[in-house]
Amino acid sequence: MKRIDLPIGVFDSGVGGLTVLDAIRRRLPAEDLLYLGDTARVPYGTRAPDTVVRYAHRVAGHLVRRGVKAIVIACNTATTWALDALEQAAAPLSIPVIGVIAPGVDAALARTRSGRIAVIGTEGTVRGGAYTRHLQAGRPDVKVEAVPCPLFVALAEEGWTDGDIARLTAERYLSPLRTAVPAADTLILGCTHYPLLANVIADVLPGVALVDSATATADATASRLAAEGLLRNAGHPGTSAFLVTDHVDRFQRVGARFLRKPPTPVELVDLTDADDAALPVPLEASA
Amino acid sequence: MKRIDLPIGVFDSGVGGLTVLDAIRRRLPAEDLLYLGDTARVPYGTRAPDTVVRYAHRVAGHLVRRGVKAIVIACNTATTWALDALEQAAAPLSIPVIGVIAPGVDAALARTRSGRIAVIGTEGTVRGGAYTRHLQAGRPDVKVEAVPCPLFVALAEEGWTDGDIARLTAERYLSPLRTAVPAADTLILGCTHYPLLANVIADVLPGVALVDSATATADATASRLAAEGLLRNAGHPGTSAFLVTDHVDRFQRVGARFLRKPPTPVELVDLTDADDAALPVPLEASA
Repeated sequence: MKRIDLPIGVFDSGVGGLTVLDAIRRRLPAEDLLYLGDTARVPYGTRAPDTVVRYAHRVAGHLVRRGVKAIVIACNTATTWALDALEQAAAPLSIPVIGVIAPGVDAALARTRSGRIAVIGTEGTVRGGAYTRHLQAGRPDVKVEAVPCPLFVALAEEGWTDGDIARLTAERYLSPLRTAVPAADTLILGCTHYPLLANVIADVLPGVALVDSATATADATASRLAAEGLLRNAGHPGTSAFLVTDHVDRFQRVGARFLRKPPTPVELVDLTDADDAALPVPLEASA
Repeated sequence: MKRIDLPIGVFDSGVGGLTVLDAIRRRLPAEDLLYLGDTARVPYGTRAPDTVVRYAHRVAGHLVRRGVKAIVIACNTATTWALDALEQAAAPLSIPVIGVIAPGVDAALARTRSGRIAVIGTEGTVRGGAYTRHLQAGRPDVKVEAVPCPLFVALAEEGWTDGDIARLTAERYLSPLRTAVPAADTLILGCTHYPLLANVIADVLPGVALVDSATATADATASRLAAEGLLRNAGHPGTSAFLVTDHVDRFQRVGARFLRKPPTPVELVDLTDADDAALPVPLEASA
C-alpha cells in the first residue's frame, strides 16, 4: 500500500480521544482513521511520567506495526510526557507525530486580547503544567489560570452533559474565573473529554472564547499532512476502525456518547514486546 | 515482637480504604494499623481480574514483610478477585485475611425484612456481581438490585459530599429504587468511598437501612482477631501509619476528606520482587 493511503493512527488511554478522532473525521473526511484506546491501562493521568512514556511507546509501536502514515496523540497526559520521545522514535520512519497541547496553545494565543487565558483539565494535566509552560513560551506576558475539573470526566462518560448537575458543577469550578482581574477572555478545554461539556461551560462563562483542543488538533493534523504531501484525494470515503486493550463493551457504550453512535468495528488487542520493538525508545530519550 | 503486638495491615488501591481504616480505628482503638494505598496502580476496578490478583499479592506481600498479624482487603475489587488467593497464600503463615464483601452481605441479610436488597458500587463492582452472588448464596430468595454510581467516587474525592450537586446526583442514581416493588429496605454501600455520601443517600431513600461495609468489616475484623486470640490489651494507644506507592501529596490532601485530618506519617514505597516472594501465589490458585 502506498504510504499516502495508510490510515492516520490516533491513540488515547481510553474513550476521551474520540473527540479528537471525531474532529479529524469532520476535518479530513477522506482519511482512514485507526484509533487505539489503551483501556487496560486507563487512566494515564495518575501514572508516573516514565510509565506514561513506556505505555505510549508500546501503543504507538502497535499502530506503526499495523501501518499508519501519522500518529496523533489524542491524550493530554501522553502528549505532556511522551510527545518528544515519540517524535524522535518516529522520525527515522518519516511518521509525523502530532500532540493535543501545541494546537490548543496556538489557537488560544491567536484569540486572546486580554492576555489572560484559562486552562481547564484533569488534576494530572494541571499539575504537569504543560499548558502554562507552552503558553508562556509563546508569549511571556500572558497570564494563565489553570483549574482542575476532575468531575467533568465522570460527567462526560456518564452522558450527563447538560441539565442541573452538569450546570452546577461547571458553575462551581468556573465561577471564580469570572471575578479574576483582568478576566480571562479565552479558555482552553485541556482534556479530551471536555468538548462534550462545551455548552454548559459556555453558559457559565459568557463572552469567553472556548478553544476546543480536539478541533485545533484536527486542524494541525490537516496542516501537517498537507505539508508532508500525505493528504488523500478528497474522493475517497474515509473509514474508522477501533482497537482497545480491554473492555470492548464499555468502550462501545461510553464511546457512543462521544461519537453519537457506538464506535465500530472494535477489535480487542494485546500489546506485546513486538509493539515495543516497532518504535524503540531512542537511546538519548531513555537516558 | 510478639505476634499479638503486630499491626493490622489494611490495603486498597487508593484512598477509599481509609473509610475502613477509620472504622477499624474506632472499633479497635488499641490496635496499631498499617495502611497501604497502591496509588501507582489505582484504580483496580478497570483492571483484568488476574492483574488485580497479581497486584493484591504484591501489596499483601509487602505488608507481610513489614510484619502484620492480619490483613484487611479494604477494596471491593481486590476482595472480589483476590480474597480466596490471599487467604490460601497467608494460611501457612497463620495470617487471617478479611475482605469487605462478606461482612456487608451478612449485615444486610440480617437486616432486611422485605427480602429486597439494593447494592451500589462502581461499574466494576456491579459488573463483577460478587454482592449479588454472595447475597443469594446466603439466602436464595433474596432479590438484589445493583446500581453503579460512578460519580460518587469523584464527588467523595472532591469533598463535595453534601449540597446541591451531591443531592441531585444521589437522586438521579437512586430514585428508581424507590419505585421497585417490593421496595428495597436495605442498601449496601458497596464501595469504600461511599460512606462519605451516606447522608445524601439516606435523604434520597428515607426508611432504607444503609449498610456501611466499612463498619461491618471493622466488626468482622474484631470478631476474627478475638477468635484467633490476636486482640491487643485495651490499654495500648493504637497508632496508624500509611504507605503509598505514588503521589504522597494527593494522598494526604484527599485522604483528609476521609479521616477529617491528613493521614500521617505517610511513606512512599516501591513494591519489589521481594514483596511477591513474601506471599507467593499458591500453585493451585495460579493454575
